Amino acid sequence: MSSATFDVLRKVTTATITTMLLKKGIRRCWMNGPKPLVPGGERLIGPAFTLRFVPAREDLATPESWAKPTSTRGAIEAMPEGVIAVADAMGIVSAGIFGDILCARMKKRSVTALVTDGALRDRTGVLASGLPVWCAGLAAPASVNGLTFVGWNEPIGCGGCAIFPGDIIVVDDDGAVVIPQDLLEFVAHEGAEHELYESWVFTEVERGVKLPGLYPPDDDAKARYAQWRKRPA
Amino acid sequence: MSSATFDVLRKVTTATITTMLLKKGIRRCWMNGPKPLVPGGERLIGPAFTLRFVPAREDLATPESWAKPTSTRGAIEAMPEGVIAVADAMGIVSAGIFGDILCARMKKRSVTALVTDGALRDRTGVLASGLPVWCAGLAAPASVNGLTFVGWNEPIGCGGCAIFPGDIIVVDDDGAVVIPQDLLEFVAHEGAEHELYESWVFTEVERGVKLPGLYPPDDDAKARYAQWRKRPA
Amino acid sequence: MSSATFDVLRKVTTATITTMLLKKGIRRCWMNGPKPLVPGGERLIGPAFTLRFVPAREDLATPESWAKPTSTRGAIEAMPEGVIAVADAMGIVSAGIFGDILCARMKKRSVTALVTDGALRDRTGVLASGLPVWCAGLAAPASVNGLTFVGWNEPIGCGGCAIFPGDIIVVDDDGAVVIPQDLLEFVAHEGAEHELYESWVFTEVERGVKLPGLYPPDDDAKARYAQWRKRPA
Amino acid sequence: MSSATFDVLRKVTTATITTMLLKKGIRRCWMNGPKPLVPGGERLIGPAFTLRFVPAREDLATPESWAKPTSTRGAIEAMPEGVIAVADAMGIVSAGIFGDILCARMKKRSVTALVTDGALRDRTGVLASGLPVWCAGLAAPASVNGLTFVGWNEPIGCGGCAIFPGDIIVVDDDGAVVIPQDLLEFVAHEGAEHELYESWVFTEVERGVKLPGLYPPDDDAKARYAQWRKRPA
Amino acid sequence: MSSATFDVLRKVTTATITTMLLKKGIRRCWMNGPKPLVPGGERLIGPAFTLRFVPAREDLATPESWAKPTSTRGAIEAMPEGVIAVADAMGIVSAGIFGDILCARMKKRSVTALVTDGALRDRTGVLASGLPVWCAGLAAPASVNGLTFVGWNEPIGCGGCAIFPGDIIVVDDDGAVVIPQDLLEFVAHEGAEHELYESWVFTEVERGVKLPGLYPPDDDAKARYAQWRKRPA
Amino acid sequence: MSSATFDVLRKVTTATITTMLLKKGIRRCWMNGPKPLVPGGERLIGPAFTLRFVPAREDLATPESWAKPTSTRGAIEAMPEGVIAVADAMGIVSAGIFGDILCARMKKRSVTALVTDGALRDRTGVLASGLPVWCAGLAAPASVNGLTFVGWNEPIGCGGCAIFPGDIIVVDDDGAVVIPQDLLEFVAHEGAEHELYESWVFTEVERGVKLPGLYPPDDDAKARYAQWRKRPA
Repeated sequence: MSSATFDVLRKVTTATITTMLLKKGIRRCWMNGPKPLVPGGERLIGPAFTLRFVPAREDLATPESWAKPTSTRGAIEAMPEGVIAVADAMGIVSAGIFGDILCARMKKRSVTALVTDGALRDRTGVLASGLPVWCAGLAAPASVNGLTFVGWNEPIGCGGCAIFPGDIIVVDDDGAVVIPQDLLEFVAHEGAEHELYESWVFTEVERGVKLPGLYPPDDDAKARYAQWRKRPA
Repeated sequence: MSSATFDVLRKVTTATITTMLLKKGIRRCWMNGPKPLVPGGERLIGPAFTLRFVPAREDLATPESWAKPTSTRGAIEAMPEGVIAVADAMGIVSAGIFGDILCARMKKRSVTALVTDGALRDRTGVLASGLPVWCAGLAAPASVNGLTFVGWNEPIGCGGCAIFPGDIIVVDDDGAVVIPQDLLEFVAHEGAEHELYESWVFTEVERGVKLPGLYPPDDDAKARYAQWRKRPA
Repeated sequence: MSSATFDVLRKVTTATITTMLLKKGIRRCWMNGPKPLVPGGERLIGPAFTLRFVPAREDLATPESWAKPTSTRGAIEAMPEGVIAVADAMGIVSAGIFGDILCARMKKRSVTALVTDGALRDRTGVLASGLPVWCAGLAAPASVNGLTFVGWNEPIGCGGCAIFPGDIIVVDDDGAVVIPQDLLEFVAHEGAEHELYESWVFTEVERGVKLPGLYPPDDDAKARYAQWRKRPA
Repeated sequence: MSSATFDVLRKVTTATITTMLLKKGIRRCWMNGPKPLVPGGERLIGPAFTLRFVPAREDLATPESWAKPTSTRGAIEAMPEGVIAVADAMGIVSAGIFGDILCARMKKRSVTALVTDGALRDRTGVLASGLPVWCAGLAAPASVNGLTFVGWNEPIGCGGCAIFPGDIIVVDDDGAVVIPQDLLEFVAHEGAEHELYESWVFTEVERGVKLPGLYPPDDDAKARYAQWRKRPA
Repeated sequence: MSSATFDVLRKVTTATITTMLLKKGIRRCWMNGPKPLVPGGERLIGPAFTLRFVPAREDLATPESWAKPTSTRGAIEAMPEGVIAVADAMGIVSAGIFGDILCARMKKRSVTALVTDGALRDRTGVLASGLPVWCAGLAAPASVNGLTFVGWNEPIGCGGCAIFPGDIIVVDDDGAVVIPQDLLEFVAHEGAEHELYESWVFTEVERGVKLPGLYPPDDDAKARYAQWRKRPA
Repeated sequence: MSSATFDVLRKVTTATITTMLLKKGIRRCWMNGPKPLVPGGERLIGPAFTLRFVPAREDLATPESWAKPTSTRGAIEAMPEGVIAVADAMGIVSAGIFGDILCARMKKRSVTALVTDGALRDRTGVLASGLPVWCAGLAAPASVNGLTFVGWNEPIGCGGCAIFPGDIIVVDDDGAVVIPQDLLEFVAHEGAEHELYESWVFTEVERGVKLPGLYPPDDDAKARYAQWRKRPA
């Protein structure tokens, strides 16, 4: 995926992305659960780096397990620059998958963002780390309290969506969406066009035009939009 | 309903309204789900204009459906000035019923507020529209991703309450309540009296009076309140 | 419990406390539900003073019941200075257990904080009361709309945890945890040591050290930490 | 409560009982959760003997705790003949509160039935014990896996209802209902009359009479019923 | 819809119907909630006659409301022979929408079946009425305890599906599915063909053939099936 | 694992197994969700063969995907004789993971049982296949309606438990439990001893002995049991 496409996509809201994917028959692309820990930040994009947890078992999910090769620590060291880490926590919000130290290390490694249908822990420290986070809650207990980490870059479920490593993730104030790789170009360019159209609709609404016939447009509105579309920049 | 009654009611918290309705045997009047998108705003009041959705079916819930006569667009154009739109989204928070453009149009039409047990989409744009919103979440996907719009000004359920067109809706930081039309006068006037009484209780608590005997009042407290009640304004 | 121990514990995050308790085999110590009404405040500690509700029954849960000896009013007058009140609302968030007046009285009685897996009502007034609150939501209806108060200082459940009167409660931005009394010394002193160690890890992460071998530490990291530990203050 | 009243009540379905209680303004009387382990048995009645659990804590909820004075064992030995034991398991269905041996002992002590919003364990053995059981599920783990027993004959919540020791419990294929003691006579006698009326309605339906005007009856239907009511037995 | 099509469809399982609808892009056609009250009965088919409830409000949902023109009684008298009544109870299973008398009347009116995402009451009497029922539970309280009836033959949601009056409903042991009217012919005939194919696959599995290449079939399997398909009946 | 150990274990209930695992600190061993499709069958044991699903995505979860190498068909052909297949369906019960044909093939391959926290489809056919099934529901739609199959013999979550390939699964009327391999001998032999002890307790209860002092036993009961233990077979 080219950085030019990313630049186009960066101006497309997650709301518009879901509408473009619906045109391709894809309804399951918005993750139910992850919300921005700090709303109002900029939209972020990156390829998915997946993390997978299963439920805790008391003989496996222990602080000692953090030193094993298959650990969240190992996963973080395997993350390439620019990825968005997506963690399948099975929607469990009573254990925080990552805290301040792990987030700080991810930030250091230039990870773009962390997305999970689970919880984070150590809110103050996570905010201080500067890592952008989309999560479903905050909880004091460590991951091992409810979860066992089992691997990275496998297909996962997150918030009711299938996420495959390398899928494109976009996050903004409306949450997190996943774009299949082969639909990236379509979504970026149709989406940008759609944003332009909506900005025109907005000006029409501002001047008092009614919605029926405008959004979606009838022939008259299409003509007016085509006219506006040709305006000098 | 007279605007004088509305002026009285405007000073009565939703908390007090529920207590007045409980005196009339009504416990189901607070909608479980809608929260203010922006807390800390002023209390708002208006008659209910209802919107009804059913679950999506792939052949019906499409972007094309937005051009049909029975559409959210049509419903908005039918909203009289001053109403509070209440949308039954069956508690589904994985599709946003309205986004920036529809909210902007509602604002233009002088709709007082939007209340739903579902989600909004396009948070940034909705905030920019200036329409006050009480909802249960934010989601990027459009309504058609999970919902089919079927009509307006029918009886609906919202957040566990029955809402009939014309019922009085009041929203503040504690959420949204519904007042049956024939109880409006009672709730407004008893509620205002109750607020006055609570303001006196508050001064008593401030000077260290214990709660038993004060709230609810025993005979002594009633006498002291009656005295205070007669003070010059 | 000595105030010296409390002073040590005050610097230990709820996140670290849960890890210390896990060392003793206790996984159920973080309450799922209570969140700070105002995030970003200081960490608070106190012995638990418990409150218990059962579901409402229409003939019992009435405004009149507030004048009975076994009432929330009576419970508040029984609260010693410095306690943290923990209310078992069975996770019901459609009725607010306390509003502004009761919170103001608790504040007056020097109660440290209120924790519940239920809701508060009258958000504006509760904030004005100055009482720190950890709750699971806000709702306009009074407790009697959904709950019947049955007693205080009994064992309760709150957010999936067993709470016994006198257990130590700690609240911060990650929520509320309970420490069994006989583990207080261990948690405070091991926890403080753990915080010191994490502060060193943080400096290591800042200078680019990888997580495996650092957190948890291998022998080399242990040696480096021991060196740092001996530094002059 | 006299055994004569019980004999009358025994012929009144739980469905009819809830309608009689609604006439008195009581809507919260049917427990959401308990279902008959073996449907098709006879209707059972008895005063409530309550059991209360809170969530498990690993240092308290152990097999060793079964030998303590405050244990389910102790509670069973305190049960008078003829009671219906109602256990508040907080709706947790992943731990079985009782198994074959405890049920066998309850049967031996002439307990009428066991009702819970939690689960039983050891289905085969429980069936063999002959104790009639209304529960919300079956689970292999013992109570201590998820619950801590804290006492008996206290007010409890069960399936969304408040249950006070001595309230009257009735169970049949539609589940379990609770009757406040002071409404027992009303419910039994009005209920029996209602059953008689419904048996007449049934015969009317059988001969093809339409429902409007019949159920509830208009004046004509009332007259026909009065006539039928006077028939010789 | 011709009765010939119904005769074809009667031999197609609901499982196969959902697969045929998936070929047309429709995934939301199986209602999550309704289960057969008596498993093992025959498959039933009929056009949908819809019933709609909203939540109860204490001043409206009363036994008196049963005598109003817009009542469940009125709805039943409006049901044509052969329909399947589908009731939107918003998934509420703590109030039984219909009991023995209403089911008996529906049976008398030759209604084919009753489907709901809510509960029935009076299990014994409902079974005795002989009306086939698919529901999500059993509850003693009457509908007015939790629901207000608002109308019939409107679009509704039931178990996560949109149901329009006249849609075709099919029920069997796997639950209830809805077929849009314009897909009925396709589903019936493709479905019947699919059942034939599956019956051949079954014989192949019985003689030990592996699944890959068989189900779905590769070219060789297709050829063998074509051969078998031509066998004399 | 020797077949001798399995023979011992076969007589130990899942209820007793969970108690033995609790002695080793393991509370998460019973799967919340799977129930016997046909209660009353014999207890079954086998090593876990795991199957993993993630949520459906419309471009991947299609009937065509059934022909891919990574498909449920491929997984079934990889199952050794005697295993218990455990499928992680993320608790989704609105799509049936397997139907009659796949179950028939599993039976043909001498798979011992199928366990899932999801649903089966085609109840009649599954029963006819003779494969013992523990599942959380029945649903007409195929797996691709809600799920994408991603692999086998990976660690999975099922009903809140971590399941690793080769863990020992035991199923009976109380549901499904998982035994870590290295605890198998302990659980089998301690469990068998516990069953023997419980059978003695049962005879004591039958002759009217009280529970306190008997279960768990005090010194006197221990002595009586030791005596009984030595009885000639």
